[in-house]
Amino acid sequence: LPAEVAPSYLWVPELPDTGGEVELPDEEAHYLRRVIRARPGDLALATDGRGALAELRLGGAGRGLRARVERIERLDRAAARRRALLLCGTPEGTRADWMVEKLAELGVDAFQPLDCARGRWRAGPAAMARWARLAVAALRQSRRRVLMEVRKPQAIAEIEPGLPESNHRWVLDPGGPGGVSPAAGSGWSVAVVGPASGLDPDEKQWLATLGFRPMCLSDGRLRTETAAVAWSAWWASGGI
Amino acid sequence: LPAEVAPSYLWVPELPDTGGEVELPDEEAHYLRRVIRARPGDLALATDGRGALAELRLGGAGRGLRARVERIERLDRAAARRRALLLCGTPEGTRADWMVEKLAELGVDAFQPLDCARGRWRAGPAAMARWARLAVAALRQSRRRVLMEVRKPQAIAEIEPGLPESNHRWVLDPGGPGGVSPAAGSGWSVAVVGPASGLDPDEKQWLATLGFRPMCLSDGRLRTETAAVAWSAWWASGGI
Repeated sequence: LPAEVAPSYLWVPELPDTGGEVELPDEEAHYLRRVIRARPGDLALATDGRGALAELRLGGAGRGLRARVERIERLDRAAARRRALLLCGTPEGTRADWMVEKLAELGVDAFQPLDCARGRWRAGPAAMARWARLAVAALRQSRRRVLMEVRKPQAIAEIEPGLPESNHRWVLDPGGPGGVSPAAGSGWSVAVVGPASGLDPDEKQWLATLGFRPMCLSDGRLRTETAAVAWSAWWASGGI
Repeated sequence: LPAEVAPSYLWVPELPDTGGEVELPDEEAHYLRRVIRARPGDLALATDGRGALAELRLGGAGRGLRARVERIERLDRAAARRRALLLCGTPEGTRADWMVEKLAELGVDAFQPLDCARGRWRAGPAAMARWARLAVAALRQSRRRVLMEVRKPQAIAEIEPGLPESNHRWVLDPGGPGGVSPAAGSGWSVAVVGPASGLDPDEKQWLATLGFRPMCLSDGRLRTETAAVAWSAWWASGGI
């Protein structure tokens, strides 16, 4: 796709096929008009967050901002992709927000807050909405085509049915082995990061039963959110 | 060293030899007495941030809090270690604080703020003091023995004399190759991350002259602070 006026992708949840017209969401219209001062006829790239990438020709001035799809590539949903799921205990304080932003920037597909014996999430509607906004902002900023899914908190005892098939299930553990290479091919990598106070022995045993193997990414002790971001960066580095 | 009362290391810049006594800094005394409610006779681990790790036996109640060094291991300064230097342009907004915290947690040895054509640091005494405090907090939290050095901002044109000898000089570049493995052995790894608006062509050329090779860690575009943390996590993962 050619050079475009906007350095970030637009997020347009419903993208028509080539030749179709779409009214841009208010936030995208504001970004184009007020932040980057785009003009009628300019090109911008937009994604629906489900894999589509479209070249949009911006329309004229009016109340709303409309655009025409010049070209669109959709993701083949049947095609295998390289994907990551992160299940994460509670970090301390207000560190979850930037963790969500960084996981989305690094291309994690799904973020699953994990309620553990030593830490339960307080994820009310305001927090869920804020994380959803952060995921969208990271999608735009990092020019990705797939929006990170932010799931509702789930108890660690109940994760089994929701786990994707994978031979790459990891639990971050300072006592685990290092020197592991991230899976390079398509398919899911899944990681569990414990809460700030750690997983308890029963939880570790349960994860072992589910095939989660310990791995270590640093010779120091990492905070929950640091371990989550470090694992995501490690995973992302295997996909270039 | 045996189990100890404090989950975090203490930071005691001057540690005497075995058998010596030391008065603990106010902040460490507060942590021991008020936060973890340690008692006279308890053991705690302390580092001087220059590689020493000491087992301290806490003294009795008094105005200050004194401790006796039961055992100490000092770092052999002549021994080669695995080390990282990160030179980093300005991130957007107030993202530098958590970046400093995360680099220190991940064991980066030195953080060099980098003034570039498209971004200059505003690092007054308050910011420098805050970053120094964050580095100490991360040292304690991540149970490290070496305090991250936070350097004053430097112009990219002036970095050459301060660069350590290294065959591992990297510049983070979304167009660079992936699949690079972090250096496993001792010695320096050095990385440059550009400011939020990017490095300009002259700067890229200058870095190439200095032997910095492009590398890429994500299939999306990373913010400055995300690239810095991702590189540090990548580097850290090679040292386990």
